[in-house]
Amino acid sequence: MNVGILGGGQLARMLALAGWPLDIRCRTIDPDPYACSGSVAPLTAIPFDDSTRILEWIKDMDVITYELEHIPQATIESLPASRLHPPAQALLATQDRLLEKKLCEKLSIPTAAFSPVAHVNELRNAIGQLGLPAVLKTRRYGYDGKGQWIITQATPLEPFFGRVGTMVPLIVEQHVDFEWEAALAAVRALNGTTRFYPLTRTHQEKGILRWARPLLPNEQSAGIEPQAREIMIALLEALNYVGVMVIEFFVTANGLLVNEMAPRVHNSAHWTIEGAECSQFENHLRAICGYPLGATESVGHCATVNLVGHVMSMNQLLSLPGLHLHLYGKMPRPGRKLGHVTLRHQDSGNLARSLDQVLKYTKEPLIKS
Amino acid sequence: MNVGILGGGQLARMLALAGWPLDIRCRTIDPDPYACSGSVAPLTAIPFDDSTRILEWIKDMDVITYELEHIPQATIESLPASRLHPPAQALLATQDRLLEKKLCEKLSIPTAAFSPVAHVNELRNAIGQLGLPAVLKTRRYGYDGKGQWIITQATPLEPFFGRVGTMVPLIVEQHVDFEWEAALAAVRALNGTTRFYPLTRTHQEKGILRWARPLLPNEQSAGIEPQAREIMIALLEALNYVGVMVIEFFVTANGLLVNEMAPRVHNSAHWTIEGAECSQFENHLRAICGYPLGATESVGHCATVNLVGHVMSMNQLLSLPGLHLHLYGKMPRPGRKLGHVTLRHQDSGNLARSLDQVLKYTKEPLIKS
Repeated sequence: MNVGILGGGQLARMLALAGWPLDIRCRTIDPDPYACSGSVAPLTAIPFDDSTRILEWIKDMDVITYELEHIPQATIESLPASRLHPPAQALLATQDRLLEKKLCEKLSIPTAAFSPVAHVNELRNAIGQLGLPAVLKTRRYGYDGKGQWIITQATPLEPFFGRVGTMVPLIVEQHVDFEWEAALAAVRALNGTTRFYPLTRTHQEKGILRWARPLLPNEQSAGIEPQAREIMIALLEALNYVGVMVIEFFVTANGLLVNEMAPRVHNSAHWTIEGAECSQFENHLRAICGYPLGATESVGHCATVNLVGHVMSMNQLLSLPGLHLHLYGKMPRPGRKLGHVTLRHQDSGNLARSLDQVLKYTKEPLIKS
Repeated sequence: MNVGILGGGQLARMLALAGWPLDIRCRTIDPDPYACSGSVAPLTAIPFDDSTRILEWIKDMDVITYELEHIPQATIESLPASRLHPPAQALLATQDRLLEKKLCEKLSIPTAAFSPVAHVNELRNAIGQLGLPAVLKTRRYGYDGKGQWIITQATPLEPFFGRVGTMVPLIVEQHVDFEWEAALAAVRALNGTTRFYPLTRTHQEKGILRWARPLLPNEQSAGIEPQAREIMIALLEALNYVGVMVIEFFVTANGLLVNEMAPRVHNSAHWTIEGAECSQFENHLRAICGYPLGATESVGHCATVNLVGHVMSMNQLLSLPGLHLHLYGKMPRPGRKLGHVTLRHQDSGNLARSLDQVLKYTKEPLIKS
């Protein structure tokens, strides 16, 4: 089975590594000829807006998938629907925050209140309705906290809007006073069978995921996991989805609000490589290739910690009990995700201690600006 | 870290796959330009007796290792000792059954009684001493039961000896009336730290490993695991060994006899990919690269079943709970190892049922001769 992946980052790399033992041969494209998938699977350098070359490239592929949202609409719509999983509408609905929010609204799924803004007067009116603080976001191309600004004062808005608003479409959202954040990963097969990974607590620092782990028993309050699954099912069915999808939630005193969703494997579920019977990467491939899904149950007590900006000593990392290292083969750069570790322990106490230790060890050094 | 592997079979393939997440980049050579490691790591076609090209190839390698014993002595001795792990003496001692047996004899490690035979008269005398049945084996290049003949009658020996004895050096061994077979995998670091995987029961069919799994509690009789570890330590220290070594044992009423040993990762420990904290493949790489060793403890209850000659339907295999598939990307051929599955379960009863089922499913079809 030949799988073509649009995008050559660490997600494509981990998909390719999960594919080899199943004789699923991944091929990747990326505008960057040195993208990190290229070490472990054939990589062709093609810009995502070059539909002609992409259509030529996919001729050898049994199935096509993608590892990132930022693919031009014209490209994604040019791909043959019968071989593209997840389907084009999933990518189109999630690559634009306004469409994503409107889909939730249509399905009665709770999100932060929102309003599109094309002019500073619209921003002023929206803030009047939503209240302060509010969050101004680009509708497209945001990731890891990029393309977001918190507005705390009603005036002056002009200079602020002028900096970003004339360039790209924007959306303004009510600022959610959440208690913590969570993410749910699920996988849906061609025949509609759906399996859920355990609901995962996520923690961001400077807009980048710092750690993620399945909820502890004391975090399982007020039926949030059933609510998360119900929302997931509504979205998967509405999109006629195939593959792994991840929804990020705000956990509030009144239950869950959808923050955003990703039509792909996701950083918050990297712990599933060691921590679930079948990882998100293998299950995505199984789903899109039409194979039976793997089990999503936990194996031990796990957490993922991202390695951002720099990688500490291999000797120090690899001497920690229960630690599994995943480097992406990328050049270090401040704020760049270079790898992650998964901690797996037989009991939750050891996991908590191990997580504290690794968070101390892996702090990004202060960068002088 | 660049690791050069001599040999491009499934062991090299699984080493390379274990290396990528640690940013350990494996490179492989093999006489066969289509060897199955080539999909997952760069492969250069070089015959093992071409020392000149091999010495050129290893210039870029930080460390050199091997995945098979059948490398000419001249080649292995030409490699730089400081970068070669396991050391040359480990390969030389194990690629020749006579040297292997003599090493055991020197270290007072029990094996079947043996005698080298260069002439039919020596074979007759040896059989007179060892008794019948006896096993005639080639000293080199045997694997998967190839190069072995059981002798049950003392006469006539001439036609039999003539068929093989004039071509290659031979050894004759007492036939061991064993109860079952076991294998121990261990890993030794550059600084001498040694860790043991659980002692594993192995079962051969037609000379090829059919299944392997850690001993059940009722098989842990008469201190065989401590005996196996004592033998392993003696051999690792005598050889100043670095990396994974596997010893295969006959389990008899009087304890263990060493059958043979492998200076490399081994089929009997493939279950460690899912079934141990750190797999034999990752631990071999950690050891030879000078990194701290990973933990060798079990995760759940596991077994490996080899897929020999043909691979049953992917849909049937992947629908079995607890099954993890490892295909090697090789062309099917009767008697060829094409992949393996690891079964992992939370309790031993489920593992036993699952193992029975998979053994039924994966029988090699009868081949008409």
